Amino acid sequence: MTAPTLGVCYYPEHWPEERWESDAARMAEVGIGFVRIGEFAWSKLEPRPGELDFSWMVRSMDVLGRHGLKVIVGTPTATPPRWMMDKHPDMVAVDENGRPRNFGSRRHYCFSHEGYRQECARITQLLIDHVGQHPALGGWQTDNEYGCHSTTLSYSEAARQGFRTWLRQRYGTVEALNEAWGNIFWSMEYNDFDQIDLPLLTVTEPNPNASLDFRRYSSDQVAAFNKVQYDLLKAARPDLPVIHNFMGRFTDFDHYELAKTIDVASWDSYPIGHLDVSDESPEVKAQFLRQGEPDAQGLQHDIYRSVGRGRWWIMEQQPGPVNWASYNPDPLPGMARLWAWEAFAHGAEVVSYFRWRQYHSAQEQMHAGLLRPDSEPAPAYNEALQVAQELKSTGIGGEARKARVAIVYDYESEWAWSVQPQAKGFSHHAHVKAAYGPLRKRGVDVDILSAQTDSFAGYDLVIIPALFAWSDQLRTALANYEGHLLIGPRTGSKTGNFTIPSGLAPDLPRNMLDAKVVRVDSTNPAIEVSVRGGGAVRHWRERLETRAEVEFEDEEGFPVLVSQGRLFYLAASGDRSLMQRVIDRMLDEANLPTLNLPAGVRCRVRDGFRVYFNYGTGPATLVKADDEADYVVGSETIPAAGVTVARLSRGD
Amino acid sequence: MTAPTLGVCYYPEHWPEERWESDAARMAEVGIGFVRIGEFAWSKLEPRPGELDFSWMVRSMDVLGRHGLKVIVGTPTATPPRWMMDKHPDMVAVDENGRPRNFGSRRHYCFSHEGYRQECARITQLLIDHVGQHPALGGWQTDNEYGCHSTTLSYSEAARQGFRTWLRQRYGTVEALNEAWGNIFWSMEYNDFDQIDLPLLTVTEPNPNASLDFRRYSSDQVAAFNKVQYDLLKAARPDLPVIHNFMGRFTDFDHYELAKTIDVASWDSYPIGHLDVSDESPEVKAQFLRQGEPDAQGLQHDIYRSVGRGRWWIMEQQPGPVNWASYNPDPLPGMARLWAWEAFAHGAEVVSYFRWRQYHSAQEQMHAGLLRPDSEPAPAYNEALQVAQELKSTGIGGEARKARVAIVYDYESEWAWSVQPQAKGFSHHAHVKAAYGPLRKRGVDVDILSAQTDSFAGYDLVIIPALFAWSDQLRTALANYEGHLLIGPRTGSKTGNFTIPSGLAPDLPRNMLDAKVVRVDSTNPAIEVSVRGGGAVRHWRERLETRAEVEFEDEEGFPVLVSQGRLFYLAASGDRSLMQRVIDRMLDEANLPTLNLPAGVRCRVRDGFRVYFNYGTGPATLVKADDEADYVVGSETIPAAGVTVARLSRGD
Amino acid sequence: MTAPTLGVCYYPEHWPEERWESDAARMAEVGIGFVRIGEFAWSKLEPRPGELDFSWMVRSMDVLGRHGLKVIVGTPTATPPRWMMDKHPDMVAVDENGRPRNFGSRRHYCFSHEGYRQECARITQLLIDHVGQHPALGGWQTDNEYGCHSTTLSYSEAARQGFRTWLRQRYGTVEALNEAWGNIFWSMEYNDFDQIDLPLLTVTEPNPNASLDFRRYSSDQVAAFNKVQYDLLKAARPDLPVIHNFMGRFTDFDHYELAKTIDVASWDSYPIGHLDVSDESPEVKAQFLRQGEPDAQGLQHDIYRSVGRGRWWIMEQQPGPVNWASYNPDPLPGMARLWAWEAFAHGAEVVSYFRWRQYHSAQEQMHAGLLRPDSEPAPAYNEALQVAQELKSTGIGGEARKARVAIVYDYESEWAWSVQPQAKGFSHHAHVKAAYGPLRKRGVDVDILSAQTDSFAGYDLVIIPALFAWSDQLRTALANYEGHLLIGPRTGSKTGNFTIPSGLAPDLPRNMLDAKVVRVDSTNPAIEVSVRGGGAVRHWRERLETRAEVEFEDEEGFPVLVSQGRLFYLAASGDRSLMQRVIDRMLDEANLPTLNLPAGVRCRVRDGFRVYFNYGTGPATLVKADDEADYVVGSETIPAAGVTVARLSRGD
Repeated sequence: MTAPTLGVCYYPEHWPEERWESDAARMAEVGIGFVRIGEFAWSKLEPRPGELDFSWMVRSMDVLGRHGLKVIVGTPTATPPRWMMDKHPDMVAVDENGRPRNFGSRRHYCFSHEGYRQECARITQLLIDHVGQHPALGGWQTDNEYGCHSTTLSYSEAARQGFRTWLRQRYGTVEALNEAWGNIFWSMEYNDFDQIDLPLLTVTEPNPNASLDFRRYSSDQVAAFNKVQYDLLKAARPDLPVIHNFMGRFTDFDHYELAKTIDVASWDSYPIGHLDVSDESPEVKAQFLRQGEPDAQGLQHDIYRSVGRGRWWIMEQQPGPVNWASYNPDPLPGMARLWAWEAFAHGAEVVSYFRWRQYHSAQEQMHAGLLRPDSEPAPAYNEALQVAQELKSTGIGGEARKARVAIVYDYESEWAWSVQPQAKGFSHHAHVKAAYGPLRKRGVDVDILSAQTDSFAGYDLVIIPALFAWSDQLRTALANYEGHLLIGPRTGSKTGNFTIPSGLAPDLPRNMLDAKVVRVDSTNPAIEVSVRGGGAVRHWRERLETRAEVEFEDEEGFPVLVSQGRLFYLAASGDRSLMQRVIDRMLDEANLPTLNLPAGVRCRVRDGFRVYFNYGTGPATLVKADDEADYVVGSETIPAAGVTVARLSRGD
Repeated sequence: MTAPTLGVCYYPEHWPEERWESDAARMAEVGIGFVRIGEFAWSKLEPRPGELDFSWMVRSMDVLGRHGLKVIVGTPTATPPRWMMDKHPDMVAVDENGRPRNFGSRRHYCFSHEGYRQECARITQLLIDHVGQHPALGGWQTDNEYGCHSTTLSYSEAARQGFRTWLRQRYGTVEALNEAWGNIFWSMEYNDFDQIDLPLLTVTEPNPNASLDFRRYSSDQVAAFNKVQYDLLKAARPDLPVIHNFMGRFTDFDHYELAKTIDVASWDSYPIGHLDVSDESPEVKAQFLRQGEPDAQGLQHDIYRSVGRGRWWIMEQQPGPVNWASYNPDPLPGMARLWAWEAFAHGAEVVSYFRWRQYHSAQEQMHAGLLRPDSEPAPAYNEALQVAQELKSTGIGGEARKARVAIVYDYESEWAWSVQPQAKGFSHHAHVKAAYGPLRKRGVDVDILSAQTDSFAGYDLVIIPALFAWSDQLRTALANYEGHLLIGPRTGSKTGNFTIPSGLAPDLPRNMLDAKVVRVDSTNPAIEVSVRGGGAVRHWRERLETRAEVEFEDEEGFPVLVSQGRLFYLAASGDRSLMQRVIDRMLDEANLPTLNLPAGVRCRVRDGFRVYFNYGTGPATLVKADDEADYVVGSETIPAAGVTVARLSRGD
Repeated sequence: MTAPTLGVCYYPEHWPEERWESDAARMAEVGIGFVRIGEFAWSKLEPRPGELDFSWMVRSMDVLGRHGLKVIVGTPTATPPRWMMDKHPDMVAVDENGRPRNFGSRRHYCFSHEGYRQECARITQLLIDHVGQHPALGGWQTDNEYGCHSTTLSYSEAARQGFRTWLRQRYGTVEALNEAWGNIFWSMEYNDFDQIDLPLLTVTEPNPNASLDFRRYSSDQVAAFNKVQYDLLKAARPDLPVIHNFMGRFTDFDHYELAKTIDVASWDSYPIGHLDVSDESPEVKAQFLRQGEPDAQGLQHDIYRSVGRGRWWIMEQQPGPVNWASYNPDPLPGMARLWAWEAFAHGAEVVSYFRWRQYHSAQEQMHAGLLRPDSEPAPAYNEALQVAQELKSTGIGGEARKARVAIVYDYESEWAWSVQPQAKGFSHHAHVKAAYGPLRKRGVDVDILSAQTDSFAGYDLVIIPALFAWSDQLRTALANYEGHLLIGPRTGSKTGNFTIPSGLAPDLPRNMLDAKVVRVDSTNPAIEVSVRGGGAVRHWRERLETRAEVEFEDEEGFPVLVSQGRLFYLAASGDRSLMQRVIDRMLDEANLPTLNLPAGVRCRVRDGFRVYFNYGTGPATLVKADDEADYVVGSETIPAAGVTVARLSRGD
């Protein structure tokens, strides 16, 4: 566990060597502890096949090390050089239109391609050989943002062959596959695994289980790809962490699964760019234009804390306007500080800004850094400096406090509902977020659990929304749990083979919940039906056959929330107002403490400190909580984009 | 002619054989008379090339027959098994981007592929051989939903060669083709038929006549494909009806033409799914979310009564939420009954629900049936039961009453205006519907006529909107007709070769109508120009040079409706209000009786009964009509989704 | 220089030869002087390879000549006949999805294809040989609308090879290219020019400099293609003008560059169709539905006057409804006259209507002409007649008056911002138009300058908005200029190699402007920030570090307009209201005279006449200007679509 530290992403290969020294000195001056380098530098390390030059990297690490900086070295496998395409002409991914993707940007490889995996093993070993014992080395990063630019799913020949092999292993016989997929339907039966093609360009939608299996297969390839590098890196330096930088709100592969071959999870946090490309409403986009949506980052933080089994970083933190969204607004002054503090409060070990200096050329020239292209400080430079000083002055350390509320978040459910939305736009993530936001507005900390969790011990409330299919582990956890549960909608509505369970959703023992979803009403989200008492349901409404107690019902008389003991079942997608009511009700049932937070303010407890951050555009006034001793950073008046840190009276 | 009877679609191959018996017993209990089976079962009948197993089908027919059910056997040609692709690798359709379509769903064949047609003949003959004399056999269905999933137009090599042959036959010489297409324009002249490619990926739009000929060619292939099966089936069992199940609002091939090789037309009615994917306004979609648009089904019923030359069925009737629209709402309670009654009132012989039991696996697992996946009754089960009882209690039989008003509906016009809209979104169907709705709101029954109609005898009013080109038959019908006519807009604006007629539209003899369309003003439909007296024109406005009497003109002084004796010409696309005015005027001119119907209520007369159906979401009160004796089902107060049947005083 | 004259586009090959005589006579009767023919007639001139027939063309020129008409003969290279595809199967352009484009419309060739260029040289020489000495010949048109239907950019093998050669010539070594493109970024370095592919189907965006170079290369190919024909035509008839008909608001190649091998620029003006496909708001589209946007044509006129170095025509003038927009409205009566007068007022030598008679067949059958398909006069016939008479009665001649205000308009800037918008939809043209409109509303004439301009002498005010990179010439012009300047936003924000200048934008000497753009805030244009004093900024806002005087600032305190002496820098994109304020301020600073024009009215001075045109839908009243003597056409009350011509007191 690393004490809260700042980092930065740096590209020595972009700058004249004579500038490295002053760059390193200024990094140290800011208070930066970690510097990530190398992850796109393959052509500089190996300009032609076998022609190696690691000396510049060693020299740059010498310089950085001299200034007390620890270096995270990235494997450069996200950017194979042009000559690699001549060695492996079939290494590129193929898109969903059957077109091979081309050289000229990055990530131009197919995860299924065995030859390229071997090249990656080779360059990883070369890195180990050349810099693996460097004293400044502080850890490794594998590749860069797996799956970015829609590269997880590839329809290449390598993927086709790999998928067949994977299916053979999964099902054993083609008869078993036909049975599992329900191929009797529409005469889709196969006589042989070699007849199976990727689910591509079918006349109408392919079999949902075929699609889901292809998603599973593709996810497995990403994990297998990472494992090749991980095994080499750990063999060489068991003492150093292997990290991967995931992305926010990205779900094309199972992060929990991949994280089995990393030591620390990290993610790249671009709050404003992500809001721009998100499906939030125009109103929300306008309201949080220069801040990002208040709960979007927190949820990702909590997800990656779970993915990293407690250990996680921000590998890339937005420092100013970016270049890749449709519109790229300037953050409010203070946001580069707020985002860092928010991440630390959620338990981050390191927050690393991307990048040191804005690069004047190529694709990302409009992406801000801590320095401007003319080497003058950009606004984030001084905000980073302030964070470093505040970390030191507070002496915050430890870990994020374990929450009393948990939500199950599951990648397979994301795939399943994108394969079969039934209501256009239906997503697992949206339902997780719909439960997460109301908790956070009440100051309640949240942990994220995977669907492989086999115990809910220690939680007072567990929420399981829109889960595709029960795992054996979750069934075990449910059976032994004594706390409160909020389940649904759509949870348990399928078996793992993507069929409707014989007893219908939510597929729980009747003594646990006497309710069946007998029919689903899906409508345009603009069409709302009021719920008696407040709020509305829309988009997804289940018709229940139930003997459970009806807690909420809608104006048309359909049950919306039912309960049986401590288990509550939510039978519809609700608007914000309904979701707040439901969550408030659950918090009340579970007797959980809440805070009275001003609009736009969120908080998180770590190591005996409660950190408040104001996502609003105006100042807010905090109400001192009973468990708070004093404010050690900021005060009860928290300005727009401001941070206040309260010390709790009795540690944590 | 079959007396009104219920049916159901059933897939014995999906269920354990031991369940067939109870299924059949329950079907009989509901009052079902017909069961469709087999149309997707090729891989179960022929698991490997030449390896046949028809025994299960015979046994299932034994079971169904024992319960008094008649079986419609479908040829399984919409779902060739995977091994077929190895026999005929080039049998698949090619999409408009030049990509071959893939196995893994259904309809993965090109209508032009001769080899696949022979395979279809083979399996059809095998069906005849194995079940053609089964005592439970009640008829045949050919293939399934021809053209579904955009499969009529294929850009395969088979289509390319077939199109050239077809053009040779149509034009004789390439010079004649050049002349007919106007290929002197833009130097598009061909020296040889073999130079002609499919109208695909041209730099800008292809020649409209080339596009239209390719539409005609493609339509002909569907008809030719069907004929292969029809000829075999009729040769084997001249006594049994051959049926095809068409789709609603589907126009990629000429249904009148295809219907020459079927005995009974049927269509698959999914009112709610179709509303969701239609181009109706969001307001209409919200208003009729759980019912379907009130006139959409009626118009299709009337079209298919015409296509079937009086004989038609609903082969698939929506029983609850479906799976294939963007959103899939739950129908109002009662709609499964209302839709069936509406179809019967329009003359359906059979209304067959799709499907018996919701299948828990594969693509359509979220599509409701009469039974839920757990075999419990879904709401439609009891509604079907009620319909069966009401059919029996009323004793309704006979046919739909011949209407006094007819509208010409023409597939070629649909193609022509999609090839050359001139105003984005301009469609023949929209203009037919715009005339149909106002008639139905006045309780007026309507017949649909093809453009090959050569006599209008028996009709008091004939409406011909947006017709591409006059046929010789229609010219004959016009010349001899003594009733009232409403023609236009855009009718007769082209010759059959897709050129502007030398005398300009509407291309009628001057003694019939002294009017020429000298120019067209097409605008975004949101831009409306009021018509003096009420209503508005928009989207399509013709500038007339005319000596006919101006009945309506717009605020800018342009004639909108002109008349010359009993012939009225409508020179613009009107909004709902204008169209009601125009239709009311025509009904008045033709002295036709009307009814005073509450909003949302429609009716249709069959066999001395007038059936009312309430598409509204609240109850409505009927005004007893002069010709009605009493109510035999329901009463003057008709609830939402309700049906009232009035007996007419003097039969019909 | 030709005195103001009308022209028309004519296709003798479309009509029976016996009709040519009366057509010619009627053209003469209208007052037409020029007739363009031949530009799509290749298949009629050479029906099969080498089989020539130029006799019909000679005869048609005989007929036209007999009626005093001068003929512009077009080279038919935009429509290679079908047999050409057999000679050169690889001659077609390939689209951005890698699909070869097909025969069946027009422009089915790739500009990079050497073989097709030779065919074009051949047919051009044949034209010269057969009609080059015809007494009726008045000039030549090369090809037709270069680049129409997205044909400038082609991803063919010919383009791939050509691009590599072009890059070799531009950069010399691959190391120089790597340096210029910044290929060290993401390991995009090449070892050899032959490794470079077209920027197509990359995983994420390609290198912006690679994209820009491909744009430059493609533009060069169009110019080179034209030069082949130009050289032959000038060699044969140095006395006759070579013209090309460009399109409006079309920027895929550099028109200034291409214009080096033409004598007269011309463009095809379709005001209503262009408004329909433009990105104007729905409100503007509704307001000017039947007129076109009031400043859209004027700006193009001024651009083409610059492109043609003072000599320009309208080669195709919209005469009525067209066929190619989504909606094709009927122009207001009078617009065919107004548009012609407007073009003449801006300096056009010839305004040529497209086309003589509406052709009843093929793709453009719904495109109006001066005659209807039945040979009766369409409304534009008489409007053209009136224009011809008014030209004669006024005796207007000379040239458009040189303006005192100039705007720099640059094709490379259009490409650059489409490659890297940073704010979705950001365009150079929009910024030019945003400055142009407010000038024109004040009755101020405008000249357009290219970025190769090396002197601003004679102008009182020069405006340089959203310019990609300074050219040496512009830097010279700036250094020597004594008038007022309005520069920005985004001007000079890149070097020619698409990198951020080391001193940051706007990259001007500090003694000229002490300001740096240190950051950019780009937002959805719907989000506006008010400017103190009126108007608003949105879409693009620069953060300035500046010691210049702040003239305007926004409500958030950011400078919007700053000045240093006579140089003003605009640091944001403004709404219409702000842009009017900025322009009014500049006019005031530069002490330029303005007029008080009614809404919707514009004017332009030529040869001592001020021509007013009313784009409004109602009448307007002119205020007589001090420099006007009397009205020689129309009066102070100018009706909708009306024209008034005032004679100035002291010529000009």
